[in-house]
Amino acid sequence: MTDVEPIRVGVLGARGRMGLEVCKAVDAAPDLELVAMVDQGDWLFNAADAGAQVLVDFTTPDVVMDNLHWAVDQGISVVVGTSGFTEQRLDRVRSWLSHKPGVGVLIAPNFGIGAVLMMQFAAKAARYFESVEIIEQHHPRKLDAPSGTATHTARLIAGARAEAGCGPMPDATEDEVAGARGAEIDGVRIHSVRAAGLVAHQEVLFGTQGETLTIRHDSLDRASFMPGVLLAVRSIESRPGLTIGLDSLLS
Amino acid sequence: MTDVEPIRVGVLGARGRMGLEVCKAVDAAPDLELVAMVDQGDWLFNAADAGAQVLVDFTTPDVVMDNLHWAVDQGISVVVGTSGFTEQRLDRVRSWLSHKPGVGVLIAPNFGIGAVLMMQFAAKAARYFESVEIIEQHHPRKLDAPSGTATHTARLIAGARAEAGCGPMPDATEDEVAGARGAEIDGVRIHSVRAAGLVAHQEVLFGTQGETLTIRHDSLDRASFMPGVLLAVRSIESRPGLTIGLDSLLS
Amino acid sequence: MTDVEPIRVGVLGARGRMGLEVCKAVDAAPDLELVAMVDQGDWLFNAADAGAQVLVDFTTPDVVMDNLHWAVDQGISVVVGTSGFTEQRLDRVRSWLSHKPGVGVLIAPNFGIGAVLMMQFAAKAARYFESVEIIEQHHPRKLDAPSGTATHTARLIAGARAEAGCGPMPDATEDEVAGARGAEIDGVRIHSVRAAGLVAHQEVLFGTQGETLTIRHDSLDRASFMPGVLLAVRSIESRPGLTIGLDSLLS
Amino acid sequence: MTDVEPIRVGVLGARGRMGLEVCKAVDAAPDLELVAMVDQGDWLFNAADAGAQVLVDFTTPDVVMDNLHWAVDQGISVVVGTSGFTEQRLDRVRSWLSHKPGVGVLIAPNFGIGAVLMMQFAAKAARYFESVEIIEQHHPRKLDAPSGTATHTARLIAGARAEAGCGPMPDATEDEVAGARGAEIDGVRIHSVRAAGLVAHQEVLFGTQGETLTIRHDSLDRASFMPGVLLAVRSIESRPGLTIGLDSLLS
Repeated sequence: MTDVEPIRVGVLGARGRMGLEVCKAVDAAPDLELVAMVDQGDWLFNAADAGAQVLVDFTTPDVVMDNLHWAVDQGISVVVGTSGFTEQRLDRVRSWLSHKPGVGVLIAPNFGIGAVLMMQFAAKAARYFESVEIIEQHHPRKLDAPSGTATHTARLIAGARAEAGCGPMPDATEDEVAGARGAEIDGVRIHSVRAAGLVAHQEVLFGTQGETLTIRHDSLDRASFMPGVLLAVRSIESRPGLTIGLDSLLS
Repeated sequence: MTDVEPIRVGVLGARGRMGLEVCKAVDAAPDLELVAMVDQGDWLFNAADAGAQVLVDFTTPDVVMDNLHWAVDQGISVVVGTSGFTEQRLDRVRSWLSHKPGVGVLIAPNFGIGAVLMMQFAAKAARYFESVEIIEQHHPRKLDAPSGTATHTARLIAGARAEAGCGPMPDATEDEVAGARGAEIDGVRIHSVRAAGLVAHQEVLFGTQGETLTIRHDSLDRASFMPGVLLAVRSIESRPGLTIGLDSLLS
Repeated sequence: MTDVEPIRVGVLGARGRMGLEVCKAVDAAPDLELVAMVDQGDWLFNAADAGAQVLVDFTTPDVVMDNLHWAVDQGISVVVGTSGFTEQRLDRVRSWLSHKPGVGVLIAPNFGIGAVLMMQFAAKAARYFESVEIIEQHHPRKLDAPSGTATHTARLIAGARAEAGCGPMPDATEDEVAGARGAEIDGVRIHSVRAAGLVAHQEVLFGTQGETLTIRHDSLDRASFMPGVLLAVRSIESRPGLTIGLDSLLS
Repeated sequence: MTDVEPIRVGVLGARGRMGLEVCKAVDAAPDLELVAMVDQGDWLFNAADAGAQVLVDFTTPDVVMDNLHWAVDQGISVVVGTSGFTEQRLDRVRSWLSHKPGVGVLIAPNFGIGAVLMMQFAAKAARYFESVEIIEQHHPRKLDAPSGTATHTARLIAGARAEAGCGPMPDATEDEVAGARGAEIDGVRIHSVRAAGLVAHQEVLFGTQGETLTIRHDSLDRASFMPGVLLAVRSIESRPGLTIGLDSLLS
């Protein structure tokens, strides 16, 4: 590493579960400096006074728009992990940014680099294999099956296959006990395993004559989101305008 | 190895697909001697004349009973891979054997040692884990889902859990796309993956707080049955009477 | 479940890291009752006064022998996870127990049921396969390679193969970059993977012509030891004398 | 699919092991037409007379250069799986092609799409994870360890990490039985497993705090090369000049 000045970072929602992890991660990174920790009841202006170049926002849907408006106005770029962004909200952010050509805002539903890469690789491999199925495995307290990530992956794969003109996958099943072949999302089969001892895992299995390619992601705790947050913090100043998702940073 | 006399082995159905493999495997084993290859149109007596101590029968349901009757009568032990044994047929074999206390007959639906061990281990582990699910993966030309082996494994596991007084497995799923959680056999979930490039694979996943135990079997070709056939050939003379399945030889 | 009286359990070392987990686990089990939590500075007699039938000892090598002597004397069975037991210490425990025929003591270096089952299954499968290798995967802060569990598993496998008269495994490697084929323990190859994001994982891979059998254990946190502790607590009163390891309870 | 004219394909080395597979694969593809099968003793001109637009060459190093010279001269594009291409030979091919701007030649050491994608994905993921190790698993008749593919993958990963400024991977190992931590290729650890029942498998394991990403390729027979050959056949006419490897076709 060289003696480049560290990036000065402020964290909004700094006392929340994710905010605390972000503060720790920023603090531990030699090329970043934690200059402001702001939460309910604190002044946003503290962040500006402390010279923050980038803010990370893990707050709540009811305050995030005000935070963004203020930050863009101040010329500060923002990395946002808060949820609740409708198309309408995104349009408002775009309009604020249109007056501030140097400022960047990145809004991501998922900062897990591994999960994002898994989806990118799956989308890319999709057209080259006859068959593909998804097996996702989670702890038994999960309410939905399949997981949101699995459903999203299936849609990406189905889209890539359609675009490449792939036909339906081979499947001679005639005699099925209900559910054995999994759920079908856009023609892609998903199998949802639920067992004690599991956390959050997903496997995408591609197969063609004589070979299989498997892409597997295992996530063990929420610390796994921090590398994605830091990647965004380091990239945002060179990406003016609105960026949705981590995807375009990983290419 | 010592200079023990090799066991003299005859093969019935010697020109069939499995019979040929058995001939090759016996021939390649230094402690076994292939003394007779019998098929349709050949005399069974050849096997006796050649001094066969053990016969291996991979013929058809319509001739296997005659073969067995004759062999037991001659005092020759038999390892049988032919299918079609009803409870009634087994009773007749038992009655023939009751007059020949030194003769053994082993009838097995599956000579894959790996598959049999997988099922034994799964049955044994069943009572110690909160959760267990089965993922079986096969080529896409397979007609049934789940596979017979998966269904059989689920029943063994369910039986072992019931015996140990295990309660139902934890599962908070409320919102399921039909089929995502797989088929249910005696309370055990089975997921059937079908993809080009696969052959025959099964994974049994056990989980309890903080740990998982996975038992996986991959079968790539029918040569995988030969070690089980040879194990039976080597064991049968010391196991008089009727033995069903390879299970009791693996303990 | 029936209305059998719960087993009354006392915990020694109750404020330690493992002791606390044991207290929580006992408390959560409907068939067990936590009647005493004892730590440094507390009276052992409290445990007896509270009517404890079984004690769990996660203390330190310097006090565990006194605890055991007292408990055996009181006729209370003990499950011990404390380390430091030499052959000499075990002999003293045996001699105390010889005067108390109804009392049981179980001393185990590892209460992970999954790990113990993995080793049992590996030892059993060993004789039926031409090849076997171990791949163990741990976090990068681990100091030793291979892990103690992998070394122990290799020895069990080597012993089982020797007993069954198995020859050396096939391996045509002529041109090896140093280390590629792993470490050799009693003729069994072990590969030690170290990577961020891993916790503690081990895979035992068995192979013979046309098939492989894989036994894999994944351990994610120390809660994974609790089912083994509770199993020991529930079994110890029916196992008078000294028991070493969880092994004989899992059969 | 539309009623586009099929591509007319000739196969050189058509009676060799790979050539035969190519003939079968071309014949089975509705958008390709097998117009010439040429082997030792046949006239190359047959291929031109039959109107071949693309040739596939799986011959031998001693004839492949003559084949290529002739084909380029005739204005026919060629997909080459024959080995033995030195830098000098490649230069000669380039010079021939410089006079025929519409003709393409693709020379690939490996037509396995799965293997090529695995390497691409590994190279791309490399910079985002603290740790990465490679586990390759092959049949025990293999002479070298690690495999060529594993070594090549390690070099790609090391290059990508160096370019991104990644530091060394974390590894606290102090006490190692020789070989446990595998072979080191450009700082990347490779573990080579050899066991009966395996064919050709490779796993690349990436890890960072709280998550791992695994890319695994399983190859079961040489039919697995055909999709790559067909992809090259379909693409080569739109890629004039010399192309090395399948890589640029998969993007």
